[in-house]
Amino acid sequence: MPTAQPCPQALFAMGRAHRDALFPQPAIQRLKRLVHIDPHLVSENFDWVPDLASVELLVTSWGCPPLNEAVLARMPRLKAVVHAAGSVKHHVTDACWERGLRVSTAAAANAVPVAEYTVAAVLFANKRVLEIRGLYREHRAPLDWAARFPGFGNYRRTVGLVGASLVGRRVLELLRPYDFDLLVADPHLDPADAEALGARLVDLDDLLAACDVVSLHAPALPETHHLLDARRLSLLRDGATLVNTGRGSLIDPLALTAEAASGRIHAVLDVTDPEVLPAESPLYSLPNVLLTPHIAGSLGGELQRITSSALDEIERYCAGQEFAHPVTRAALTISA
Amino acid sequence: MPTAQPCPQALFAMGRAHRDALFPQPAIQRLKRLVHIDPHLVSENFDWVPDLASVELLVTSWGCPPLNEAVLARMPRLKAVVHAAGSVKHHVTDACWERGLRVSTAAAANAVPVAEYTVAAVLFANKRVLEIRGLYREHRAPLDWAARFPGFGNYRRTVGLVGASLVGRRVLELLRPYDFDLLVADPHLDPADAEALGARLVDLDDLLAACDVVSLHAPALPETHHLLDARRLSLLRDGATLVNTGRGSLIDPLALTAEAASGRIHAVLDVTDPEVLPAESPLYSLPNVLLTPHIAGSLGGELQRITSSALDEIERYCAGQEFAHPVTRAALTISA
Repeated sequence: MPTAQPCPQALFAMGRAHRDALFPQPAIQRLKRLVHIDPHLVSENFDWVPDLASVELLVTSWGCPPLNEAVLARMPRLKAVVHAAGSVKHHVTDACWERGLRVSTAAAANAVPVAEYTVAAVLFANKRVLEIRGLYREHRAPLDWAARFPGFGNYRRTVGLVGASLVGRRVLELLRPYDFDLLVADPHLDPADAEALGARLVDLDDLLAACDVVSLHAPALPETHHLLDARRLSLLRDGATLVNTGRGSLIDPLALTAEAASGRIHAVLDVTDPEVLPAESPLYSLPNVLLTPHIAGSLGGELQRITSSALDEIERYCAGQEFAHPVTRAALTISA
Repeated sequence: MPTAQPCPQALFAMGRAHRDALFPQPAIQRLKRLVHIDPHLVSENFDWVPDLASVELLVTSWGCPPLNEAVLARMPRLKAVVHAAGSVKHHVTDACWERGLRVSTAAAANAVPVAEYTVAAVLFANKRVLEIRGLYREHRAPLDWAARFPGFGNYRRTVGLVGASLVGRRVLELLRPYDFDLLVADPHLDPADAEALGARLVDLDDLLAACDVVSLHAPALPETHHLLDARRLSLLRDGATLVNTGRGSLIDPLALTAEAASGRIHAVLDVTDPEVLPAESPLYSLPNVLLTPHIAGSLGGELQRITSSALDEIERYCAGQEFAHPVTRAALTISA
């Protein structure tokens, strides 16, 4: 608990529905022990907000408007932005860095459920659980699964991660107790970093050709747009599974649809390009595709993990400590 | 590698198809460095097997005939049974114990894939992945998932295991890195044992009433037949998920079908009673049920984990060491 220092004035800046979901009464109570805040005042834009001049700390989340020069000019005392969500790219502008604002993110907390979804997807993919469920529904009799899926299962399979992001690192950690060979491709990693993560660093093309499951955890950047194009998708082994819980834009959607529809590869897709696929897309109903509507991230009860992370950061700020999860301008250019 | 001692004479006793799947060429080569064995001779019964009298070590698996008195009388030199599968109940008889045979099992290796299937089932169940996939297929538009599945996700959910079997223990180990409250019910456990496993010991009825997910890992014994009857199933919370990778007979099938068909509970069923359900069973197609045909155990490539475990035991036997995974008569009465 703070603190010798005076309680800072804080303000919610996020979509109102997100405020309601992220900050139920117990969270508001903890927040009010740390800062001065009007919990009913939620800025979805800053045009009509009174007393912006007194705000020292912004508590942001999805739906926070961009913190541009004009907005910052109205908040001369603003010192810190604590983001109760993942990426700060939509609201933390260059002007924030030039003002020297301290920025924190709950991206690590937000990475957890995505990593957990990925682990379950990998285990079920190698075991062909959903394909077998579908066949069992259809035939209502046992078939020769080993003949249909030679060598399937989770023993000594090769799992490759594209991108050692926060999510990617957590996936590697969670996959360690299993009998997998773990590979990673990431231009910002060296072999020793990879080894410390329990994986072997390889080229993206080599990774695609070597893996039973490939999982994408790269950020959406101009240089990662359609990173998996038709050529790279063709490198995947027959029967390999491609998992995308990252960003839809990482994969060329036409090439992906063709490879999946042919049955050559399997896919687990929580994100797509476009985000909601046209109703006629075959990806909705292919037996070798598990398609979900961007649910791997924090939802439902998982939002409280984010809230808890953000409140911990606010407590650190109030106690005059460094953030545990600071965002720097440099890190932002290579991350999500 | 052995050994000052002479190589023992060994014999395969299992179904021929299992021999073929469990002992491909590299495994046979390792085996032949340890024991004298005719790899082509696979006893599915012992009636026509020559030279039984010289056999010191039986390498058994699924399909091994019962090792009763008459059979043992023909194997006067038999000292050990190394089982390349899980339960030895079908072939290790009282006569084996009276002869003082040493028995080893690959049950720990066989437990691994069942535990892994369970972990994935738990993670997907709390997140409602398959239900949401089904709804997304149907509507082809995003819905308000949080409204439909209040509080869903994998944060601070309660997961309860019925039975601290080998599989149950491995599940507890694998679930430790997640944000779950873990409960366990097992009449052979005391609170300190449970705590050492990372779980809290509770009564079965209390466990059923407290959990978001209940997973069954009890053995099939007379006293566990329909352990989850209509009364106990009614204790499950609305929206709870029941996972059964253990034995179909643990649950009253009529009561289970009624609870699942009403939509009140969700279920992940890899085993059923009877083992292949009648074609008209609603469990095949309910959106809140994941039904698979007894695939959680070792299949495909996972058989090699069992082989590797059995070969390690044979190596220990040849080196005059104790088995790492011995079976005792006493342990057998309370396990699968």
